[in-house]
Amino acid sequence: MGEPTVHETVLRVRYQETDQMGVVHHSNYAVWFEVGRTAFIREIGVSYGELEEQGILLPVVDLHCRFNSPARYEDEVRVLTRVGEMRGPKITFRYEVRRKSDNELVARGETIHMWTDRRMKRFNLKRQKPELYHLLLAHTH
Amino acid sequence: MGEPTVHETVLRVRYQETDQMGVVHHSNYAVWFEVGRTAFIREIGVSYGELEEQGILLPVVDLHCRFNSPARYEDEVRVLTRVGEMRGPKITFRYEVRRKSDNELVARGETIHMWTDRRMKRFNLKRQKPELYHLLLAHTH
Amino acid sequence: MGEPTVHETVLRVRYQETDQMGVVHHSNYAVWFEVGRTAFIREIGVSYGELEEQGILLPVVDLHCRFNSPARYEDEVRVLTRVGEMRGPKITFRYEVRRKSDNELVARGETIHMWTDRRMKRFNLKRQKPELYHLLLAHTH
Amino acid sequence: MGEPTVHETVLRVRYQETDQMGVVHHSNYAVWFEVGRTAFIREIGVSYGELEEQGILLPVVDLHCRFNSPARYEDEVRVLTRVGEMRGPKITFRYEVRRKSDNELVARGETIHMWTDRRMKRFNLKRQKPELYHLLLAHTH
Repeated sequence: MGEPTVHETVLRVRYQETDQMGVVHHSNYAVWFEVGRTAFIREIGVSYGELEEQGILLPVVDLHCRFNSPARYEDEVRVLTRVGEMRGPKITFRYEVRRKSDNELVARGETIHMWTDRRMKRFNLKRQKPELYHLLLAHTH
Repeated sequence: MGEPTVHETVLRVRYQETDQMGVVHHSNYAVWFEVGRTAFIREIGVSYGELEEQGILLPVVDLHCRFNSPARYEDEVRVLTRVGEMRGPKITFRYEVRRKSDNELVARGETIHMWTDRRMKRFNLKRQKPELYHLLLAHTH
Repeated sequence: MGEPTVHETVLRVRYQETDQMGVVHHSNYAVWFEVGRTAFIREIGVSYGELEEQGILLPVVDLHCRFNSPARYEDEVRVLTRVGEMRGPKITFRYEVRRKSDNELVARGETIHMWTDRRMKRFNLKRQKPELYHLLLAHTH
Repeated sequence: MGEPTVHETVLRVRYQETDQMGVVHHSNYAVWFEVGRTAFIREIGVSYGELEEQGILLPVVDLHCRFNSPARYEDEVRVLTRVGEMRGPKITFRYEVRRKSDNELVARGETIHMWTDRRMKRFNLKRQKPELYHLLLAHTH
């Protein structure tokens, strides 16, 4: 069994993302995780936008983030994303955010998502698995 | 002819709305204008959410804002909204943001909106005017 | 020993807080928790802004949020905040977000904060405890 | 006299930037303009962050944006920035946002900024002009 795929997206901190403490406001990390996650999905050949049009959604049901060292305006950060567990109707993504200049750990986090239909009802994966399901599974090891 | 109705909403500046200059980031004023505008519409008896469900949208086609004095964390601000012109398919809303403690002018602005259908095509007001159209017209003078 | 104080703030969902799934984007809950937390602190007689000016910060070091039921545009939500543990240099706040109309649970979460000085170095609570420390402690039971 | 320099930054629309209309919420354009403007300043050799540390700020005093065609989730957009007028204590930046795939105009806008000191008082440009002033002037034609 191999290692899970780690996808990297590089972002530059926007001025608007700072707060009066002079650092990136913590609510932005959920946005950065999402940028990393959707870039990962796009890279393996699926558009999350098209998935939604097909009536398959992956809403976040759980978000956890630990903040190690503040990111600051104009910092470039690496968002490292990988798939964690895929159990039943849920899938976990894991993230690391590292300052690009010195590779220092800025934050770590996970999001758990539920496969749902358009009305946010649990998608029956036993009857049909979306193509993305198989692709993500192939990247977990 | 009378004065246009002025609707007031009071907001407290959120920490997340500040930036590293120690003041409210200018992108938030468009959000505050929207809060004032939708509260105005709600007060005259229409839910903007229900309007959208009926297939009538009012997307912003023009935004203008002048910043006079910065708002700061925890300031309470009054967002004063009124209807400006209603010409053809367009409607203008005007806003003033004032610090509550001393009534100092923080910002002034306008948004111009287009009456559209769900696909963002111009709504034919000659054939049918939404109820909100008449209600807003009654508040312009 | 009594119950911890529960502080309530009521918010109305802003249009800007929705995303194309038609629900509140999950990154906003960290902002709502912050609104609840700072309103709590204000109610017990301390301005978080003034605290910062004195050189005492409470940056978030850990954020956890579980999403139960989506909040939607124009919903009014109750943000219920209470102090959790106060251990060493850390303090935990706990939150519940409930839809006001039917009291349904929307989300639950915690944030852990570190008492720090202006340079985000750990504040020495053994030498000096800020007034807010004592006030919050009194509200934990 | 030549043409003003046009700086290009390419952004990918983030999911969080959409609203329930299914398009980018209009408040994000001020953020995109800022990303374009600060990238421009960085490219000509100045860090806006360092400028602030020197006590020279360029707060926005006026924002104007016209929305032509909505940007949607996952669209790549080109933010084209150039310096407009530099008159007295004010400087204007102009922006065009174009969808990358077909070059369609998404939005156009301007921001007017004031050269100020740390306390947001007008900076005396007659006594001293910041290096950035001369660099920007060289890019206006």
